[in-house]
Amino acid sequence: MAQQHQISKAVISRLPRYYRYLRVLIEEGVERVSSEELSRLMKATASQIRQDLNNFGGFGQQGYGYNVKSLYNEIGKILGVEQAHDLIVIGAGNLGRALVRYKGFSTHGFKFRAMFDIDDNLCGKSINGVKVYHLNGLLNFVMKNKVDIAALTIPSEDAIKVSKQLYSLGIRYFWNFAHTDLELPSDAIVKNVHLLDSLLELSFEASRSKEH
Amino acid sequence: MAQQHQISKAVISRLPRYYRYLRVLIEEGVERVSSEELSRLMKATASQIRQDLNNFGGFGQQGYGYNVKSLYNEIGKILGVEQAHDLIVIGAGNLGRALVRYKGFSTHGFKFRAMFDIDDNLCGKSINGVKVYHLNGLLNFVMKNKVDIAALTIPSEDAIKVSKQLYSLGIRYFWNFAHTDLELPSDAIVKNVHLLDSLLELSFEASRSKEH
Repeated sequence: MAQQHQISKAVISRLPRYYRYLRVLIEEGVERVSSEELSRLMKATASQIRQDLNNFGGFGQQGYGYNVKSLYNEIGKILGVEQAHDLIVIGAGNLGRALVRYKGFSTHGFKFRAMFDIDDNLCGKSINGVKVYHLNGLLNFVMKNKVDIAALTIPSEDAIKVSKQLYSLGIRYFWNFAHTDLELPSDAIVKNVHLLDSLLELSFEASRSKEH
Repeated sequence: MAQQHQISKAVISRLPRYYRYLRVLIEEGVERVSSEELSRLMKATASQIRQDLNNFGGFGQQGYGYNVKSLYNEIGKILGVEQAHDLIVIGAGNLGRALVRYKGFSTHGFKFRAMFDIDDNLCGKSINGVKVYHLNGLLNFVMKNKVDIAALTIPSEDAIKVSKQLYSLGIRYFWNFAHTDLELPSDAIVKNVHLLDSLLELSFEASRSKEH
C-alpha cells in the first residue's frame, strides 16, 4: 500500500462513512453495488466515489460495480480494523462509562482494557467488564500492557497534563473529549471530539435563522 | 449582521474554538490580546485569525489588539449563546445521560428539557433534574413546550424514524449521535457526532504508522 502516502486527509475522513454504508448493504444482503447506487445512498457524486476508491487501487469493475463484501473488507483493512486496538479511558465519569459500554466499538477491533480515575469511590469497580484503576497506577499499567489509544474524558487542565504523561510513556494516539486542544509533540495523533463546539455550531445556525 | 450570509462554513466551524480560547484568557485575567498572541495560542496564522474575525466587522484596533471580553461576547452573540436553547434528548442510555449530566452546556444557554426512551424502567426517572418520558409522549411534549434542538442517542434505524417524526413536529435542529446519516429535508440542520468514525480515523493512522 505504498500509494497511501498521497491520500488526502479529506479522503481518509470519508472512509469510515463508506465503511458504514457498506456494512448496511451487507446486512441487507446486497452483493454488488455501482458507484451510481453508492452515490444516491451517500448523497455524494458518483465521480467523487470512483475517485475516492481509486486511491486504494480501485476495487470496481467497469459495468459490474463493486463487490460489496470485498470492498468492505478492503476498506476495513485500510482503516486498520483487522488489527486489535487496545484502548484505555482516562476518566470514569458519565462519558467514559458511555464509551466502554457502547457495543459498536468492539466489533471493529477496539478493546477497552482499563479505565483510570482519581475518584476513590470508582476505583476498583468494573464497568462493562473494564476495571477502573486509580490514576496513580497509570505508569505501572502502561509498562505492563499494550496500549494503542488513550481516550480522555476528563476536564481540560487534567487532559493537557495527563496526555503529556501518556506521551512520555510512549502513547501516540489520543481520542480527546476534553474541551481543549492538547499540547503534544507533532508525532502525536489527536482526534478531538469537542461536543460543545458542535452544539455551538448548531446554535449558530438556529439563531441565524431566527434573524430572517 | 447582514454580512453573515457570506461567511463560509469553515469560518463558522472555527468560531467555537475562538470562543473556547477567549474564555480561557478571561479566566486567566487577560484583558487584551493581539492576533499574534492568539495565533501562537491557537496554532493558526495571525493573518488567518485577522481574516476570520474581519468577517464579523473586525473587533480589533491596529496596534492595540482585541479586547478579550468584548470579542468573547461578540462571538458568543454570533454563536447564539445569549439566547436560551431548549433541548430534548431521545435515548436515556449511557450517552444520553452523559449529555444531560455534563455541566459545560448549561453555562452557554443550552437547557435540557426532557429525555425520551422506550425502556419502561427508565421512564418517570429524573437524570440530573431532567425527566425521562416514554417516547409515546413525544408529540404531546413538543406541542406544549419550546424545543429548539433534538439530540439523538438511539440506534441508527430508530434515529432515522424518530428524526422524521421530530421534523414533522417542526423541529429543525438535530444533534445526531446515531451511527447513521439522517434522511431529512434540506432545511433540517444536522450536526453529526459519529464516534466510531473518529475512532476509525485514529485506527487508520495507527495501523499506517505500523507499516513503516
